[in-house]
Amino acid sequence: MFQTARGTQDFLPEEMRKRNWVLDNIREVFEVYGYEPLGTPAFESWDMLKIKSGEDAVNQIYYFKDKSDRELGLRFEWTASLARVVASHRELPMPFKRYAIGPVWRYERPSEMSRREFWQMDVDIVGVADPIADAEVIAVAVDCLKRIGFEGFVIRLNDRKLLEALVEVAGLPMERRLDIFRAVDKREKIGDKGVLDELKELCASPEASNRLLDLISKKGDPESILESTRKYILESHSGLQACETLSSIVRHSSYFGIQQYIMIDLGLARGLDYYTGPVFEVYAKGFEDAGSIAGGGRYDDLVELFGGDATPMTGISMGIHRLVTLLEKMGVFERLELGPEVYVVSTSEVLQLKAIEVTQMLRRAGLSTEMDLLSRGMSRQLEIANRKGVNKVVIVGERELKDGCVSVRDMKTAVQRVVRLERLVEEI
Amino acid sequence: MFQTARGTQDFLPEEMRKRNWVLDNIREVFEVYGYEPLGTPAFESWDMLKIKSGEDAVNQIYYFKDKSDRELGLRFEWTASLARVVASHRELPMPFKRYAIGPVWRYERPSEMSRREFWQMDVDIVGVADPIADAEVIAVAVDCLKRIGFEGFVIRLNDRKLLEALVEVAGLPMERRLDIFRAVDKREKIGDKGVLDELKELCASPEASNRLLDLISKKGDPESILESTRKYILESHSGLQACETLSSIVRHSSYFGIQQYIMIDLGLARGLDYYTGPVFEVYAKGFEDAGSIAGGGRYDDLVELFGGDATPMTGISMGIHRLVTLLEKMGVFERLELGPEVYVVSTSEVLQLKAIEVTQMLRRAGLSTEMDLLSRGMSRQLEIANRKGVNKVVIVGERELKDGCVSVRDMKTAVQRVVRLERLVEEI
Repeated sequence: MFQTARGTQDFLPEEMRKRNWVLDNIREVFEVYGYEPLGTPAFESWDMLKIKSGEDAVNQIYYFKDKSDRELGLRFEWTASLARVVASHRELPMPFKRYAIGPVWRYERPSEMSRREFWQMDVDIVGVADPIADAEVIAVAVDCLKRIGFEGFVIRLNDRKLLEALVEVAGLPMERRLDIFRAVDKREKIGDKGVLDELKELCASPEASNRLLDLISKKGDPESILESTRKYILESHSGLQACETLSSIVRHSSYFGIQQYIMIDLGLARGLDYYTGPVFEVYAKGFEDAGSIAGGGRYDDLVELFGGDATPMTGISMGIHRLVTLLEKMGVFERLELGPEVYVVSTSEVLQLKAIEVTQMLRRAGLSTEMDLLSRGMSRQLEIANRKGVNKVVIVGERELKDGCVSVRDMKTAVQRVVRLERLVEEI
Repeated sequence: MFQTARGTQDFLPEEMRKRNWVLDNIREVFEVYGYEPLGTPAFESWDMLKIKSGEDAVNQIYYFKDKSDRELGLRFEWTASLARVVASHRELPMPFKRYAIGPVWRYERPSEMSRREFWQMDVDIVGVADPIADAEVIAVAVDCLKRIGFEGFVIRLNDRKLLEALVEVAGLPMERRLDIFRAVDKREKIGDKGVLDELKELCASPEASNRLLDLISKKGDPESILESTRKYILESHSGLQACETLSSIVRHSSYFGIQQYIMIDLGLARGLDYYTGPVFEVYAKGFEDAGSIAGGGRYDDLVELFGGDATPMTGISMGIHRLVTLLEKMGVFERLELGPEVYVVSTSEVLQLKAIEVTQMLRRAGLSTEMDLLSRGMSRQLEIANRKGVNKVVIVGERELKDGCVSVRDMKTAVQRVVRLERLVEEI
């Protein structure tokens, strides 16, 4: 017997229906916001994949060679491919708002929450430097999450440039800022003590490290946090500008209808190296411990790195696995009817052919309809119809058929009626 | 500047919208027929992938090792993964009708019609030996194709067991039958002469080869072809049984509503080695030269080969690329409106914030709505709305806004009206 490759898994129909329901709903919201689909290949040249990412990321890429010894790798997120497309298609009208939905692959230690193959749903806005774009991508994510059943949210907001200013103010080595961000990013996982240990390894003094931890511990109401923080970084032009950016996102977010969820969290760093400005994470209220259910940020340098013109970009990403896990806990799927609507039962083997015709009539009217293909007895067919959870059963019997009729049983009320074939579709 | 890996390509939004429209429609038909989604990983163990396929197929698989030296390969079609799942999940209720939609990868010489990454849409019925299942999968494919705009069809039908009987009658070496089928399969590509050359290489005598070519040249009305063929193979029990199977598929297909398209083509072999019974291909009338737009067959040995119980299976597959190419020629996409429905224009930069609110209101009502994110002038915004092909433009102007109103312009009639904000959604 063969197994799936390590870190990957099959999704049987029950699970897949839930996943598809989430993906379809989210795609609809993406499209309602005017995002456009872009298709990029599952594998890309190795040179391209490794250019943008920190060492951690490169180590996680599935690497292989094709039969002509070209070095390739499976995509490990969506953004690099987007930046490649933008760099090489200068004719794309700006702003370019694109969505991408599909699997990405990372060679990670497999666990309950992290798989080596997992689906990500991304929206990104290309070509808008103004914070209106950051506010919009956060709003899309929130509307997606509302659509599938989440209600309360906590949106954590920070800015990499502000973090940089705090690193400087605290007296830590600026040239190690990306390493410092990575350490700070793990704070919830490894605790203050863990972060201090990592900072120590980066040659930061204990005093400076403690100062930084102190500075980044602030979170809460945007206005008051930003006001008090500005006082520390009066020397840092880019830090003060970051405060402006954050307050502009907050201002816009009220028009997008999401301001009530936003807080500033000066300790938010995000793991990836390429962010250049605002970073943000969305948490589901009541499920904060499960981690963020959407996250992203601004990365204005990436297209240039890929050989294109300087192009501002910002985006947000959601993973399907965590969403489905939480929605299951919330009982959202129990309220959904995800199976076929109708089951056509034939009372004898001879009538199976007639049952095909009836089934096809219902299917062509757009009703999801199933019938028996194994010439099973009638009571067995009814049992299966019941197990599949259909709303209606159509019974093709000899007597009714002679009068051009079939019986329709409502599986909830158990009421059964005889219906003329011509009127069957509208009766159901 | 980076390129896509050889044989792969990007799909820009215009192209992706067409592809998604096709995929969505086909998925809807799959679900209406009661097929269930199954998710399997993009890569599988190398041992599993190579077990089922002829040498040609194995050579086309992208092979790689993960960092623990496990041998893996990208899936090159959907059926192997399905058989693996069926073999290892004996609890699956039978019949199991599953669909799969997604990319597969083959290391082929790239050309206009064949790519190294391409999307396939498959339906398969697991657990039904009766020809009703073969008839159903053909009917699903035809209904999918009708739904997206195809009208006339030619369905070619044959049976591997019947072909075997003809190989025997012609006096060719039975132990080379898979090679013979592969040669016969290329007939339309390489001509009779080419097939004869290949058969010669398989040590067949010219007389026997010519006899086979003569026998398999018959195609047309099922009943008459089957009747005349039976006479040649009176000695072959399995050959006669194959004739029964084919005539049962034809009988069922009339109830499925597709009999008018069916012909028997004794020269149809299909390329893959694992077929064990009926094989079939669907062609679009008027586009027969473009090749088949759906194809499949029965493969009753596969699950056993994968370590499971003997389980009959049959299925059909469609490729997105050929469908989109033909639909473009047919002008189907010109009739579709695939972009956003509404564009919200603001008459001054100050009103941009108010435009966000209006946009969000429309989006939350389910209307695909776009607005300007670059603070562009009003005439530029109208120009963009026009290029995007929206139906309605909502103009947020200072004067109307004071009265709680906005203007709505119908882009087809150019009629513009003032509408109260509370009534905007229903007016659009």
